[in-house]
Amino acid sequence: MSFIATPQSMHFADALALQSGASIRDYHLAFETYGQLNADRSNAVLVCHALNASHHVAGRYEGQDKSEGWWDNMIGPGKPVDTNRFFVIGVNNLGSCFGSTGPMHTHPDTGEVYGADFPVVTVEDWVNAQARLLNRLGIDRLAAVLGGSLGGMQALSWTLQYPERVRHAVVVASAPNLTAENIAFNEVARRAIVTDPDFHGGHFYRHGVIPKRGLRIARMIGHITYLSDDVMNEKFGRQLREGIDLKYSTQDVEFQIESYLRYQGDKFSDYFDANTYLLITRALDYFDPARAFGGNLTQALARATAKFLLVSFTTDWRFSPKRSREIVKALLDNRRDVSYAEIDAPHGHDAFLLDDARYMSVMSSYFDSIAKELA
Amino acid sequence: MSFIATPQSMHFADALALQSGASIRDYHLAFETYGQLNADRSNAVLVCHALNASHHVAGRYEGQDKSEGWWDNMIGPGKPVDTNRFFVIGVNNLGSCFGSTGPMHTHPDTGEVYGADFPVVTVEDWVNAQARLLNRLGIDRLAAVLGGSLGGMQALSWTLQYPERVRHAVVVASAPNLTAENIAFNEVARRAIVTDPDFHGGHFYRHGVIPKRGLRIARMIGHITYLSDDVMNEKFGRQLREGIDLKYSTQDVEFQIESYLRYQGDKFSDYFDANTYLLITRALDYFDPARAFGGNLTQALARATAKFLLVSFTTDWRFSPKRSREIVKALLDNRRDVSYAEIDAPHGHDAFLLDDARYMSVMSSYFDSIAKELA
Repeated sequence: MSFIATPQSMHFADALALQSGASIRDYHLAFETYGQLNADRSNAVLVCHALNASHHVAGRYEGQDKSEGWWDNMIGPGKPVDTNRFFVIGVNNLGSCFGSTGPMHTHPDTGEVYGADFPVVTVEDWVNAQARLLNRLGIDRLAAVLGGSLGGMQALSWTLQYPERVRHAVVVASAPNLTAENIAFNEVARRAIVTDPDFHGGHFYRHGVIPKRGLRIARMIGHITYLSDDVMNEKFGRQLREGIDLKYSTQDVEFQIESYLRYQGDKFSDYFDANTYLLITRALDYFDPARAFGGNLTQALARATAKFLLVSFTTDWRFSPKRSREIVKALLDNRRDVSYAEIDAPHGHDAFLLDDARYMSVMSSYFDSIAKELA
Repeated sequence: MSFIATPQSMHFADALALQSGASIRDYHLAFETYGQLNADRSNAVLVCHALNASHHVAGRYEGQDKSEGWWDNMIGPGKPVDTNRFFVIGVNNLGSCFGSTGPMHTHPDTGEVYGADFPVVTVEDWVNAQARLLNRLGIDRLAAVLGGSLGGMQALSWTLQYPERVRHAVVVASAPNLTAENIAFNEVARRAIVTDPDFHGGHFYRHGVIPKRGLRIARMIGHITYLSDDVMNEKFGRQLREGIDLKYSTQDVEFQIESYLRYQGDKFSDYFDANTYLLITRALDYFDPARAFGGNLTQALARATAKFLLVSFTTDWRFSPKRSREIVKALLDNRRDVSYAEIDAPHGHDAFLLDDARYMSVMSSYFDSIAKELA
């Protein structure tokens, strides 16, 4: 049974300058903390989230069954990131729909719901916002910053934006930027949302509707790309949904995989915000620390002084091991301290959220060594 | 300069029984022929098409520049499938939107446009319809049946449904059935079409609208999966569309790949029929000759007596070499005569339509040997 987690919120009145040139003020960040900050404030671990996640990283909510955080298998008392030793902080990013200020909140200048007017936020902007939160919590330097997928991009960016504030960066199932194919999948998902007649240019809140059709399609595409071909074949294969007879229909569900995807799409469209989906996929598209260095990742990572653990999964075709190895190589070119584990797991990109003995063991060992370093 | 091709059409009054239990009567098949049928009618080659193609396989139309057939690089005088030696037949399948009877035509029972009432057609049904066409053309036995992707499934099915009528089967970039992932991509595309408010349950013709939003999304998804990650990176990478400055927008085009996909989607939605898209992707989903044999492909292919050439492409992740090798293995288990070429080409699934010296050379040699066998 997991421990009880309590969501908190912090208000920031001052404007935060964003990479786009815009700024945002009077915003809230939702966050949670687990464990105790030690006397010299050196044991803080910041966990950054990916597309469909939040500040609720671990533990469960009082009185709510099945409310475990999204990385509850990784973080908690006696777990790889052990909250008996570390003070863990989960923070929800700006633009999200899970608690921090986002498109469904009110723009302080206009008194209207932001909608499509919420400013474009980047990985770098999120890191700046997280740094402000740490300032308020009195944490100068992190024992580690940790994230998977888009969360791994934030962890990497921390080491470039605030090198002196990060001892260790743990970058799981991530990449130094998106490939054209990944941008392409994001773009199809965005088009499905934006061309839904219920999107109304992003101001659907005013019309009392939700672009559910688009959100469903976006989620279905996402879901396919988070799984491996192998695991899909194993879980669903060509199994029919009902018995052994084909119905011969173009619009009804025939195969189990169709039923599963429709269910995932429906569920997602009930709780996820369409503008948030656009914002977060764009943050993924934009992240590219090598861009300012003419594409030279080695030069881009020269600023980083943290020690690194990189983890990738063999069947992850969205953020493939090859992409993690690019980061490893660039860090080694800079003579940085890097550990790298390529885990032979069948579950595709989703593997970073799942239990796998070797993966858990690598994470345990690494955080164990961080704890010893602090002691 | 290609030769001049002339489309023809054949009417079939008698009902064709379909796999679903339904039937279709009073239908037309559009077809083209190139080259001359020899005296003993032994040099016919049937070419089967995939999702977005037709009977217009080779040559160009009189007075129409850039009207070359979809496999014009492969078929014609002096080309790998040499029309100086072979009598080549291209046929458009039932349910298509390129000439043969399809959802936008009139149902003879009701006098109304078929729309969603067009019967579900399978690869086996298409082969039966093609066999009827060959009967009318006076062709008992094919020198070869040839197809790529879904066309390859038809070529394979010919060897099972009419083993005595096929000397050679050439199955390119194909598979013995779709994986769960492939069905999943088809399903997302279908949901995008079916949930488009302009689809009207498939009877959009009556409402004077076209579900263009859905068709665009379907095509964008398809396009991503036909290309390899590598070729996308090479062609587009992370190039911005306009200059070097980011616009920071969630809805505008920022990267070249987005612009390319939007263009492909728009173009497709102007000419492709939404009901046809559903029918053809369903035919892909359903094809599974091993199904009646409890999944045993070796048993399923025991009926085939043709000689085979299988070709796959290393970067094709939609119809991967592994899937072609399953067919090769099942045929070898049955001691059939099989040649297999795995072409190291960068272009993904689309490679089967493109020029590649090794691929063309394999096809040339194989058809050359067929011609010699006939002489």
